Amino acid sequence: MKQIIITFKLLLLAVTFSFAQNTYNLYPANWWVGMKYNKLQIMINGTDVGKHSGFAINYPGITLTKVNKFQSKNYVILDVTISPAAKPGTIGIRSKSAEGKQVNFEFSLQPRRPGRGSVFANGATSSDLMYLIMPDRFSNGDPSNDRVPGMLDQTLRRDTVFNRHGGDLKGIENKLDYLSDLGVTALWLNPIIENDMHERTEHGYAFTNHYRVDRRLGGDWAYKQLIKAAHAKGLKVIQDAVYNHIGLQHFLFKDQPDSTWFHRWPKFTQTNYKDQVLFDPYAASEDKRIMSDGWFVTSMPDWDQSNPFVANFLIQHAVWTVEEYGIDGWRIDTYAYNDLAFMNRCNKALYDEYPKISIFGETWVHGVPNQSFFCENNYTIKYKSNLQATTDFQTLFYGIQPACNEKFGWTEGVNKLYTTTAQDFLYKDPMRQVIFLDNHDLPRFYSVVGEDTSKYKMAFSWMLTFRGIPQMYYGNEILMTGLTSPNDGYVRQDFPGGWEGDKADKFTTAGRTEKENKIFNYIKRLANFRKTSSAIKTGKLMQFLPIDGVYVYFRYDAKQTVMCIMNTNAEPKTIDLNRFMERIKGFQTAVDVAAGVEFRLEKNLQLMPVSNLVLELK
Amino acid sequence: MKQIIITFKLLLLAVTFSFAQNTYNLYPANWWVGMKYNKLQIMINGTDVGKHSGFAINYPGITLTKVNKFQSKNYVILDVTISPAAKPGTIGIRSKSAEGKQVNFEFSLQPRRPGRGSVFANGATSSDLMYLIMPDRFSNGDPSNDRVPGMLDQTLRRDTVFNRHGGDLKGIENKLDYLSDLGVTALWLNPIIENDMHERTEHGYAFTNHYRVDRRLGGDWAYKQLIKAAHAKGLKVIQDAVYNHIGLQHFLFKDQPDSTWFHRWPKFTQTNYKDQVLFDPYAASEDKRIMSDGWFVTSMPDWDQSNPFVANFLIQHAVWTVEEYGIDGWRIDTYAYNDLAFMNRCNKALYDEYPKISIFGETWVHGVPNQSFFCENNYTIKYKSNLQATTDFQTLFYGIQPACNEKFGWTEGVNKLYTTTAQDFLYKDPMRQVIFLDNHDLPRFYSVVGEDTSKYKMAFSWMLTFRGIPQMYYGNEILMTGLTSPNDGYVRQDFPGGWEGDKADKFTTAGRTEKENKIFNYIKRLANFRKTSSAIKTGKLMQFLPIDGVYVYFRYDAKQTVMCIMNTNAEPKTIDLNRFMERIKGFQTAVDVAAGVEFRLEKNLQLMPVSNLVLELK
Repeated sequence: MKQIIITFKLLLLAVTFSFAQNTYNLYPANWWVGMKYNKLQIMINGTDVGKHSGFAINYPGITLTKVNKFQSKNYVILDVTISPAAKPGTIGIRSKSAEGKQVNFEFSLQPRRPGRGSVFANGATSSDLMYLIMPDRFSNGDPSNDRVPGMLDQTLRRDTVFNRHGGDLKGIENKLDYLSDLGVTALWLNPIIENDMHERTEHGYAFTNHYRVDRRLGGDWAYKQLIKAAHAKGLKVIQDAVYNHIGLQHFLFKDQPDSTWFHRWPKFTQTNYKDQVLFDPYAASEDKRIMSDGWFVTSMPDWDQSNPFVANFLIQHAVWTVEEYGIDGWRIDTYAYNDLAFMNRCNKALYDEYPKISIFGETWVHGVPNQSFFCENNYTIKYKSNLQATTDFQTLFYGIQPACNEKFGWTEGVNKLYTTTAQDFLYKDPMRQVIFLDNHDLPRFYSVVGEDTSKYKMAFSWMLTFRGIPQMYYGNEILMTGLTSPNDGYVRQDFPGGWEGDKADKFTTAGRTEKENKIFNYIKRLANFRKTSSAIKTGKLMQFLPIDGVYVYFRYDAKQTVMCIMNTNAEPKTIDLNRFMERIKGFQTAVDVAAGVEFRLEKNLQLMPVSNLVLELK
Repeated sequence: MKQIIITFKLLLLAVTFSFAQNTYNLYPANWWVGMKYNKLQIMINGTDVGKHSGFAINYPGITLTKVNKFQSKNYVILDVTISPAAKPGTIGIRSKSAEGKQVNFEFSLQPRRPGRGSVFANGATSSDLMYLIMPDRFSNGDPSNDRVPGMLDQTLRRDTVFNRHGGDLKGIENKLDYLSDLGVTALWLNPIIENDMHERTEHGYAFTNHYRVDRRLGGDWAYKQLIKAAHAKGLKVIQDAVYNHIGLQHFLFKDQPDSTWFHRWPKFTQTNYKDQVLFDPYAASEDKRIMSDGWFVTSMPDWDQSNPFVANFLIQHAVWTVEEYGIDGWRIDTYAYNDLAFMNRCNKALYDEYPKISIFGETWVHGVPNQSFFCENNYTIKYKSNLQATTDFQTLFYGIQPACNEKFGWTEGVNKLYTTTAQDFLYKDPMRQVIFLDNHDLPRFYSVVGEDTSKYKMAFSWMLTFRGIPQMYYGNEILMTGLTSPNDGYVRQDFPGGWEGDKADKFTTAGRTEKENKIFNYIKRLANFRKTSSAIKTGKLMQFLPIDGVYVYFRYDAKQTVMCIMNTNAEPKTIDLNRFMERIKGFQTAVDVAAGVEFRLEKNLQLMPVSNLVLELK
């Protein structure tokens, strides 16, 4: 553990310069040679640095084009151009303080991380199975960082939902084999960036310093170690980006460069949370302003991304993060609440630098038109999003959820899943959409279906065979429960066994109950089948009209055909396979993937009540 | 009455030629000089006409380019080109029968109807208020045509819902002043074309001869008289087109030219009624085929519109109808069930000939994406519809209906109306959409809201002030009730007073109850205000986010601002007008249009429970 702390200190030394009583931080403190993004704004933050003069850089290939000063004298931002010919090295930045003292800073220019697009920045695709983890709640690999002296939140109480529990990145690293064995191929972690707030620091969405991984999670070093280990095991890592807001304790809010960096209101004004105003042809200006510029919550100041300094700060941080840590893709928080022109710029910077990177945005909205507005779509409207995909709340709310819980009807039950999917014509690339049953903000799906394992298996089998990128939530595989009432902390409980001394270790077969092992193995079998199934990973989808509560869809390509049959009825059903001749013609037998049984295809097929049969046709 | 019958016979003479025992009918039997649509297919139907030879036309500017024969020897179709130089007159068509007899036919080339785009083919727009009438059920102006000898349906029983009741076009003509006084500016009649079927002839959707207006409604002459009278009073006439199917007794089905004119199935196959398969990227071929080619019901054979003879027959009839009768626009039945490529061709022929004509299609579907697929939209997808607009089932099912009947919630109640309207960005021109509360297929809205006059007034006031073309259904103004169970006949009851000897005549103030007069006058006042309101007729819409069950929208242009406030709560509410400053700035007073009261605008406004206040701001 000692080593971690030492390394962390060394890293800090690289970005911090102390002169007499003053400390200066550079954001970013390093960049890379040969990047497309080569017009950098280097922020220097330190007492009275804004009063310095004579800023100068003398380094081949580096040009200081402008020195930007602000109302707050604790900031300067240097506009720096890095020419393609610049060589790696340490760049000296000279300046003179108001008192006439020479003050120098160092900025590091590095060779690029090798392997982009293969070893990192490789993007999550429909070939992946993504696993979402809330780092504080999964596994505690390093108890020494549970409380970090000097940080504002010193709570550590696992019997409450909003205090810290001690989970960390090392804990996740320890479980990579477990995840890989389950069939997971990509991790999405809730934000890992420093949240040095007084309370509610468990969720991670209130950044206080973009350029620091939270030390309670293990800091930069642990993050790099985790990513290295994940990549070594063939697992991708998706980072959670929060562009819309920061934590109230962020240094840039506590000491704002000037009054134009955040949306200000005469009194606290909360966003109206209504995405519709952004595309409604009839929206009122004030409704639009409140949506985009209103704050998410009182503790999270809302960036004004139309300020170019803010925009550049955020974009640079995104690019920096991919290169610095070697991440594979982004999940963007509260996508609709951002300045959408800014979002396009930011996404473009990442696509330009990392063509294989994947980016999806959180769109907790209602309606495929609403959701598709925020990503690449088939609309000829003024605002064209360049976001690849969204978190597909529609196939959840108006899809698998009613399929499980609603009686079949003309527009009800599994017909909703069918009709929502039919609206995929609105998306440019539906295969990039991220499908899921639950996440850190939603009731756990096992609770949503009233802890009915048949429904749960049906839903999981859907998620693992449908179009898009499936995302599961930690603990799905062991039937973790939880509702968002009385509050969402109850869907963020600890993974049993993630802490030393836990009553049971559900990371192990022995620690799980029989019922849990059944589900675990069911998911594992399908997830591992998925890993090798070209039809599911990259094949086409064909869906047939649901009839009498039975929904049939196929995943297929030239090499493989997988037939999925969802019987949403509480009774067994018999279906006539003739109807599906377009896809089953020529096949003689079917392998029931979950059961591992092969059988001959006859005219009729018997279906179990509430089931999704996954059949590989032979 | 005598005169009508005589004239009708004269008209028939113009299209029918009898030679010895044989009768020949031409479809169409006339056309016009100077039409853009000048390549005509003239169908001649008569015993053994297909065995004739030597077809010839000798008329300046007319070229017979091809003689088409069929398996059935009772048809020939002549391809004829009419040059722009052709003069009006009677065209002789010569032929020789199989027996070598000379058989001649006459085809009439006429000067064009004057005044297209002003006197007729003038289109219904958002400036109109449309009134839908089922002709058999509105008013019986000519009891002599109630039963027509020789027609198959000889029922006449007003105490049943599916037999004929005797209403007719003369009855409608008699009530034009009533309608105009109410504020109506356009009539849409359920189909008026001959339905010579054994039963269920009241609805009119089973044509048996396209070129005949049903004689029980008064025939061609009565239709022309009605349209002439309507136009004289400034009322437009919208005809109901049925391209998808015909009645089983249609001569073209009973004696089919060949086997390619109708969709044939090994056994009766009904459409699946699922619009989704037409745009679903994943639809199965067989689901698509059943949707488009399946029959609507057993009694209505489904045209194969991919057969060019069928397509031309239907398109010519549409163009012919506008010019022959002088109609203003089309409502197209069961739009989604037609061959969509055919529909585009058909619509284009009408637009080309009559640039101001209006066309809207029936789209009884669920979802704005679904509905907008069938009309001009903002999609970059392969199939681009050229249909101007649809019957807007979405603002009904997912709009005003839940606004009236559902408790307010994040996605419930009037928030549905708001969010459905926000999806208008999918349409190319939402102002052309036809909005309505009910029609001949739906439960009457007064019944839908549980006969609650407050809800009913709220909904009506919405319909008369919102974007689009409002369409009311006969009897809305006198609180007619009816549900679609046990069957839809119950929403097609007679208008009381439309028949001599009716207990009460609700076309008159004295015949209506106090409650009915209140509603009647409410609608009349708003409808007549609408007539003179540029803001409502052609102005813009701005909608504010519903808050606490209160929904506020504005209609406005440079000359006028109308503020509409819908309180969907069962309790009174007070709203702060400051929120609407973007639109109310500069105005001092408001005229409550329904009450006729002017008041000063203060900071707050008190709202009555369940109400839609229409305020003209001054």
